[in-house]
Amino acid sequence: MSSDSPNNNIKNSFASDNISSACPEVMDAIIEANSGIAKSYGEDDYSKRLQEKLSEVFETEVIAYPVVSGTAANALALATLAPSYGKVFCHEMSHINTDECGAPEFFTGGAKLVPISSDNGKITADALADKIRGAGNVHSAQPATVSITQSCEVGALYQLNEISAIAKTAHENGLSVHMDGARFANGLVALDVSPAEMTWKSGVDVLSFGGTKNGCIAAEAVVFFKPELVQSFPFLHKRSGQLLSKMRFISAQLDAYLTDDVWLRNARHANEMAARLSQGLAEIKGIELAFPTESNEIFAHIPRDVIEALNAAGFSVTEGELDETAPPRFVTAWNTEATEVDALLDAVKTAVNATSNQT
Amino acid sequence: MSSDSPNNNIKNSFASDNISSACPEVMDAIIEANSGIAKSYGEDDYSKRLQEKLSEVFETEVIAYPVVSGTAANALALATLAPSYGKVFCHEMSHINTDECGAPEFFTGGAKLVPISSDNGKITADALADKIRGAGNVHSAQPATVSITQSCEVGALYQLNEISAIAKTAHENGLSVHMDGARFANGLVALDVSPAEMTWKSGVDVLSFGGTKNGCIAAEAVVFFKPELVQSFPFLHKRSGQLLSKMRFISAQLDAYLTDDVWLRNARHANEMAARLSQGLAEIKGIELAFPTESNEIFAHIPRDVIEALNAAGFSVTEGELDETAPPRFVTAWNTEATEVDALLDAVKTAVNATSNQT
Amino acid sequence: MSSDSPNNNIKNSFASDNISSACPEVMDAIIEANSGIAKSYGEDDYSKRLQEKLSEVFETEVIAYPVVSGTAANALALATLAPSYGKVFCHEMSHINTDECGAPEFFTGGAKLVPISSDNGKITADALADKIRGAGNVHSAQPATVSITQSCEVGALYQLNEISAIAKTAHENGLSVHMDGARFANGLVALDVSPAEMTWKSGVDVLSFGGTKNGCIAAEAVVFFKPELVQSFPFLHKRSGQLLSKMRFISAQLDAYLTDDVWLRNARHANEMAARLSQGLAEIKGIELAFPTESNEIFAHIPRDVIEALNAAGFSVTEGELDETAPPRFVTAWNTEATEVDALLDAVKTAVNATSNQT
Amino acid sequence: MSSDSPNNNIKNSFASDNISSACPEVMDAIIEANSGIAKSYGEDDYSKRLQEKLSEVFETEVIAYPVVSGTAANALALATLAPSYGKVFCHEMSHINTDECGAPEFFTGGAKLVPISSDNGKITADALADKIRGAGNVHSAQPATVSITQSCEVGALYQLNEISAIAKTAHENGLSVHMDGARFANGLVALDVSPAEMTWKSGVDVLSFGGTKNGCIAAEAVVFFKPELVQSFPFLHKRSGQLLSKMRFISAQLDAYLTDDVWLRNARHANEMAARLSQGLAEIKGIELAFPTESNEIFAHIPRDVIEALNAAGFSVTEGELDETAPPRFVTAWNTEATEVDALLDAVKTAVNATSNQT
Repeated sequence: MSSDSPNNNIKNSFASDNISSACPEVMDAIIEANSGIAKSYGEDDYSKRLQEKLSEVFETEVIAYPVVSGTAANALALATLAPSYGKVFCHEMSHINTDECGAPEFFTGGAKLVPISSDNGKITADALADKIRGAGNVHSAQPATVSITQSCEVGALYQLNEISAIAKTAHENGLSVHMDGARFANGLVALDVSPAEMTWKSGVDVLSFGGTKNGCIAAEAVVFFKPELVQSFPFLHKRSGQLLSKMRFISAQLDAYLTDDVWLRNARHANEMAARLSQGLAEIKGIELAFPTESNEIFAHIPRDVIEALNAAGFSVTEGELDETAPPRFVTAWNTEATEVDALLDAVKTAVNATSNQT
Repeated sequence: MSSDSPNNNIKNSFASDNISSACPEVMDAIIEANSGIAKSYGEDDYSKRLQEKLSEVFETEVIAYPVVSGTAANALALATLAPSYGKVFCHEMSHINTDECGAPEFFTGGAKLVPISSDNGKITADALADKIRGAGNVHSAQPATVSITQSCEVGALYQLNEISAIAKTAHENGLSVHMDGARFANGLVALDVSPAEMTWKSGVDVLSFGGTKNGCIAAEAVVFFKPELVQSFPFLHKRSGQLLSKMRFISAQLDAYLTDDVWLRNARHANEMAARLSQGLAEIKGIELAFPTESNEIFAHIPRDVIEALNAAGFSVTEGELDETAPPRFVTAWNTEATEVDALLDAVKTAVNATSNQT
Repeated sequence: MSSDSPNNNIKNSFASDNISSACPEVMDAIIEANSGIAKSYGEDDYSKRLQEKLSEVFETEVIAYPVVSGTAANALALATLAPSYGKVFCHEMSHINTDECGAPEFFTGGAKLVPISSDNGKITADALADKIRGAGNVHSAQPATVSITQSCEVGALYQLNEISAIAKTAHENGLSVHMDGARFANGLVALDVSPAEMTWKSGVDVLSFGGTKNGCIAAEAVVFFKPELVQSFPFLHKRSGQLLSKMRFISAQLDAYLTDDVWLRNARHANEMAARLSQGLAEIKGIELAFPTESNEIFAHIPRDVIEALNAAGFSVTEGELDETAPPRFVTAWNTEATEVDALLDAVKTAVNATSNQT
Repeated sequence: MSSDSPNNNIKNSFASDNISSACPEVMDAIIEANSGIAKSYGEDDYSKRLQEKLSEVFETEVIAYPVVSGTAANALALATLAPSYGKVFCHEMSHINTDECGAPEFFTGGAKLVPISSDNGKITADALADKIRGAGNVHSAQPATVSITQSCEVGALYQLNEISAIAKTAHENGLSVHMDGARFANGLVALDVSPAEMTWKSGVDVLSFGGTKNGCIAAEAVVFFKPELVQSFPFLHKRSGQLLSKMRFISAQLDAYLTDDVWLRNARHANEMAARLSQGLAEIKGIELAFPTESNEIFAHIPRDVIEALNAAGFSVTEGELDETAPPRFVTAWNTEATEVDALLDAVKTAVNATSNQT
């Protein structure tokens, strides 16, 4: 990410992948979509083509609805999967539970998010089974769906067998399975599996498919792998203000994103830069990775004085992404440059040396 | 609007102004905003500049929040102005009452839209006064706000004194005043008044400021003229999935739209084309305008067989925009060409002649 | 209604039928239900017997849920019949639209009540047909159900053929039919038809069956005539705080109410007293009935100075039951005495004479 | 509790205190309230007197609203204290989190219940402090209120200093304090403190005051200790169907309940019987109390075959009140007889002996 732009009001280009720009293929698609008129509200050719493209990519007939934010994608998906008196099982640190200001509760009409704790950011089939209670009992909010994040909030990945096990437990108990795929592509290329394998073949019913963090401007899609789950989605979609009149501009982004492996290439690059940064950090004395780096997020324990030194040097290190006491997070993007990674590593080393000399 | 594009899956370029493309200034702004990194969630420079730009345009310090659809703008504004047990007074044919699939009810948590009828698409202060009942009575949903649309759903305009009278009645009764400005610019240039005059100087408290229909891709803003009304808006904004991570791209659109009178020029052109079409239609025998053409929407009574002939000729004439029995609507846009207008007029004349010869 | 009780903080015993006490049979049932223990949350014998009793009374297998207020009965019924993005068609003056502080909107999660106007307090099948629009169109809240009140808010009654016609129009358009029966018994005995005839045989799908106004303390029931409509009702019931732990005390009231024609006897008496009062008022010069008296509510146009004279004499005449400009309402109850009616009539005559002498 | 009544469709009279009948004083009050007419919707004398009575009992001017269920009391209180985007901190096993089918989420419009775990059923000020995060951050649901249950779901009691500490942490962080007092009286007499001490003097802002479980038919009250917190409560009250038309019958119950120490006497008796049962169980070999018995609930670990033997003998022992794996619960009531306790103890002993002989 170039840092000499008029937008450069932040110094640390590792704050999040949502500070990055859009990739050229996506920008070109927006410009092309702007030629001429097109039917509104998703009746346009781009939106139709997106359905086909997603069906190809996922090797099955899907029904997909573009939206403009991950929060909307998740909340709308859950609103279709859980009744107002339902329970949504999720990790305690999941984005839907901690970073969406209660959007799932709002869109579902008051469903209850049931947090599941673990040290590695992932839930297990056993932990889920243990929490599923009260089905049919009118006193209890009703178990409805489980939501997992791939790649998850600490950057770790669910292996296919872990997803399958969770889905098996869910389905056996009458629950549906939602995947928050805000960083779907990063997880996918890291696991080196197919989109089908990481979703419906492993039991995922509905996917929040993310594009924004990996090269789009604002483009996500709610992807249904089972038509019978769509139900009232079109009405909820409109009713939430997410059915854009000029939807072609969202669909065109995703279309370009999915064409010629743009999305996979972008994700692979981000993951490679993350690995470079992760390895570099791990080698610095006094720095310890908080979680294994499996996709494009790195969490590392860094001494407080080193953080302060980095901030003083212009790197605004983000703490408390998970909670106030959490280790700082670094995120790489589709266009992070190796020189940027190395510059950060140099800065950390300098800061570590400076602070260890002081003591 | 050019019709030789790959998007051209519609023949009638007068179906709505939301089928049009974005204007070059807006596209350039998007491209420029894509250079480099920027803080996310509206903390970027573009979003900050937009606040200033809007404050200049409205000649007062405003607080504004960008969103991506008019439905979201309206519903979020109303959610701030009306409690869940509140009443929102509006015209029976208003967009919030008929075209948003209950978004205002959803965002407010169940406020009651109280429809007011009239022949000309506008509500009056007297009709409003007549409907305001039950304040303080726990059995009654509580009068909370009035929402008017400028320009309104039949293309007519509220004169400044009409807005003032409605606002006076509203404020005297403890209600706030919301304006749905999806076609704000079209109304503004038609009235030839200032943005301040058409809003807060006439008593409007909160405005849904539209950009999408007049040259943007997807960009609206909720504009507060009174800081004390903002209340919990930032949380509702996030919670509804409308706080985009890459908000710079929405703010940049509105910024360009408001710069160098782009928005006013676009709107003036659309209105001129509407006048040309309206006059042309009115001169055709058998065609009668359903409402006076005051901005960029034309409604005309057209014989059924003429409509069918137009459709057969490739002009998909939209009926029932207001309701199933309503007269067809024609909308002009920032880039409607005079030749397109004339081509439509020719086609109508041909169809009228053909059908009158038959009988 | 005796007026020498410690509760007598109101003078006018015609203010509403909800100021009356409970009838002896209902009180005895409560006392009897208090002997010993019973399963909670509606698993008790009284609640089970109520199901059977209602099935007998309605000559079909019904599924019924006791609740403690008419507002709850209506709102819960509608929450089952209309989705959050649905439309509920009702009379403009209906209780659900004007007197429940938005409870239907709350319980449904934001459904839109679509008011239908008429002079006689009733909606017609034609007026309903005219309002049903937008099915399948995502921009429109979806037509879901129609709610009629029997006897209605101005005391008039829907004839069986009127109910059937409304139900036919509703069902043909995919809508369900709800009846607000807060004064069900009064309507029933006035029409002299069977409970089955006035409900499911005429096309009613779900009934709010009222007991409170006609001799109970607080007892209503939501009665489903079609099991497939029950859906998630038990969860909504609990979730709204209407599933009482000691439900036996509500069920016992309704059980006694339905036993040995108590409810019909109570209603007949109230209607007779209403007829006596109505005829008496109609004979007084200067007084004019606002609506025909068909059950136990009387609305009469009474000169302002007469109303003031009556109030001065200790009769607090209620104006504005329907709206601020509406004629005063008088309601008779199961225990209204003929002497009370006559005393009121005498007072009106005296007031009329006094005021006409003044002028 | 006598077991020879027509209601006796349950054998185990220790299943809950909500299977018990109402006490004579409450029944007498209902009968007395039935004499004559009374203003509706809480405008009656009983309801007014209740306000005064509660103010006396709590030694401060309170504002109170009667409702008919504990679920409604809690949900309405929380709807006033937490915005739709708010967080409600509570124990993981709290009634609001596990037994109300999501009523708090429904009434608040989607607030998030944040569960806090502990072994003894109580939350601590420290645990609360640890969970309060994200204030002012639009991405996070906003910390709004903490809810504690007295006596709590495992029968334990918050000591005054524990309540004060929680309230101090809450207030310092801008949160309000709610107490679920479904078994308020049982906790009160166990602690031997005043109602004022256990509530507002210890920092409680709003109380769900329970009457149903301790001698009423269906009567709870939401009690506000700070008038400024009442806000829109009257509208929410009506809108939820909890503002009964014949409210005098609910108010009269609470009035009698609070008169001449009826409520304290009832609670003392229930607690004494609980102590008798608890001590008896603890003395039986193989039986172990799961929690200390501090009010009128006993939880005991009982071998599976003993439970089965008890069930076979006609005592339906309730397992899984807390969750499916939880120890059985026994609850005593205002009218539990010592002979009933002893009969249960005898049965347990017999079952223990029988099963230990088998092995």
